Amino acid sequence: MQINDIIAAITPLDEASMAAARARQDMLTKPQGSLGRLEELSIQLAGITCTCPPPVPSRKTVLVFAGDHGVVAQGVSAYPQEVTPQMVYNFLRGGAAINVLARQAGARVVVIDAGVAAPLAPADGLIDGKVAPGTADMSLGPAMTPAQAHQALALGVRVAQEEIARGLDLLACGEMGIGNTTPATAIIATFTGRAPLEITGPGTGLASPAVRLKADVIARSLAVNRPDPADGLDVLTKVGGFEIGAMAGAMLAAAAAHVPVVVDGLIATSAALIAAALAPDARGYMISGHRSTEPGHNAALAHLGLTPVIDLNLRLGEGTGAVLAFHIVDAAARILGQMATFAEAGVSEKDAA
Amino acid sequence: MQINDIIAAITPLDEASMAAARARQDMLTKPQGSLGRLEELSIQLAGITCTCPPPVPSRKTVLVFAGDHGVVAQGVSAYPQEVTPQMVYNFLRGGAAINVLARQAGARVVVIDAGVAAPLAPADGLIDGKVAPGTADMSLGPAMTPAQAHQALALGVRVAQEEIARGLDLLACGEMGIGNTTPATAIIATFTGRAPLEITGPGTGLASPAVRLKADVIARSLAVNRPDPADGLDVLTKVGGFEIGAMAGAMLAAAAAHVPVVVDGLIATSAALIAAALAPDARGYMISGHRSTEPGHNAALAHLGLTPVIDLNLRLGEGTGAVLAFHIVDAAARILGQMATFAEAGVSEKDAA
Repeated sequence: MQINDIIAAITPLDEASMAAARARQDMLTKPQGSLGRLEELSIQLAGITCTCPPPVPSRKTVLVFAGDHGVVAQGVSAYPQEVTPQMVYNFLRGGAAINVLARQAGARVVVIDAGVAAPLAPADGLIDGKVAPGTADMSLGPAMTPAQAHQALALGVRVAQEEIARGLDLLACGEMGIGNTTPATAIIATFTGRAPLEITGPGTGLASPAVRLKADVIARSLAVNRPDPADGLDVLTKVGGFEIGAMAGAMLAAAAAHVPVVVDGLIATSAALIAAALAPDARGYMISGHRSTEPGHNAALAHLGLTPVIDLNLRLGEGTGAVLAFHIVDAAARILGQMATFAEAGVSEKDAA
Repeated sequence: MQINDIIAAITPLDEASMAAARARQDMLTKPQGSLGRLEELSIQLAGITCTCPPPVPSRKTVLVFAGDHGVVAQGVSAYPQEVTPQMVYNFLRGGAAINVLARQAGARVVVIDAGVAAPLAPADGLIDGKVAPGTADMSLGPAMTPAQAHQALALGVRVAQEEIARGLDLLACGEMGIGNTTPATAIIATFTGRAPLEITGPGTGLASPAVRLKADVIARSLAVNRPDPADGLDVLTKVGGFEIGAMAGAMLAAAAAHVPVVVDGLIATSAALIAAALAPDARGYMISGHRSTEPGHNAALAHLGLTPVIDLNLRLGEGTGAVLAFHIVDAAARILGQMATFAEAGVSEKDAA
């Protein structure tokens, strides 16, 4: 099937381009290493795009996948499920945080119904990819069937490939789905082996007794389903979500096409774990946009070996942290491509002593 | 004198606008507090500009003050002093990191000779504000006279006021000056009471034995001069620099004009300490752009009560970290001004439970 072709197409980053980027950084008019993370990002971008200096990203898209979760029946969210479709309409009208930040960053917002429980009216800018009207309650059995998991991944691949076909330099994956910190935390617990109680957070704003209940629901979901951390598709099937599977598919498609993909917070990073389980080399194409306040996020980042670009105590999702990080990724590419070298500028280098 | 008029014009932030900003943040379509630092910045911007929502910054400037330091005779820098004028010419030709990042951010770069040791050829875009060709060696006596300290502050005021007169929404202060982490660290040691050895770092790239020598030079400079931390002008005179004094003046002028000022790394933050010593209310107008890798920076930030916007292991100066933070400050203003409210978007609020 298509997913396997995508996975087979994902290669390690291009070492020659990274070596050229490292060498060029050391020729630029600044003390070596003084631009810290910008230098590292520029080297990663060179490796992703197989080009040195890498192009300055101009065609940028944030994919916002929406989905609902049967597990909300267990009382795991501070907001009612009706907010998922309400926020989809807010995205389509341009009033949400992601719209504001994407306009600033010059990024297209593409909204995808991956599995919203309510029927959505067709609208310009909305892609109907509904796998099903919400997942099943994972605390009682698998969140979805294996066929639905495939369908969610394939949806993400298709949407990302449509953007790539238009011309795409930088992708972000974000989401909306009431209750989705619960499956995300279950996924993270599965891959990292951490206990749910240690890594479960308040999501959109639960009080502490409700956080304990949420951790119990996650623990029960893991006990009922026994997801296999060696099998990304099994984890997605048993404790995932349609928007999470679609994000994982989009990340794989980006990696296969040598497009850098900025991963948003907790839920997007849980999708990144699934993508990396399916294709370990996909990790090289990922940039963590921001550090979420959710406790599970650090565990997921450590497992992936990713360090966030920004750390602003965000916990909104939608791709907001990823799109904010676009500015920094852009800066990294510009630095490598546009700064003068010591020789060009006639600037003396560091004393040999 | 003029500086006293500026200081007298600096008021606390406008509480009414901040209260309005807080109230509006809680009406926007997101869980309350979920945009973390962006929300705090938007409230600060409202207080600075006395406007809610605050305007999205469109007219942006980074002031890059250059100066040299007599204390380089003590071997405190990895680079020769000739690099200061060489980098000034690099700024004027647009090849330095600050030029690249300012172009990205849509910011003007204004380069000011505050006290470069070498004579500089007149050039478009270069303001000749040379107080003297470098400071005196502070390890032997005061870095400058009190009159020169006044002159440096007044230079910064004048340059900032010229930008304000053109129309200015957001200011950054940056610098270039071989050896200037040494006076900056001496200033930070003076205000924070920390021992030089604890807070002295490698600057542009000293090896550890040279860092110890640098800390010794700083300790000797403090012992010889005994700067008074209760007197900002005394500290500037004894262990400061011309570009540091000018940055402090620019920060005061920005605060007096209700313009937010983004403070770059170690050296700019040492200037912020002097500005805050002269006018404690000026702190409210400051935003720390980034967290430097230099150990003295955290001590200075803690003293000022500032938390950096970004943390990317930068240690270049020039205003680079401040201008990178412009994107985040801009995002904060846009979020408050452009997001839909729950009522406008027809989105349900959090469950009362």
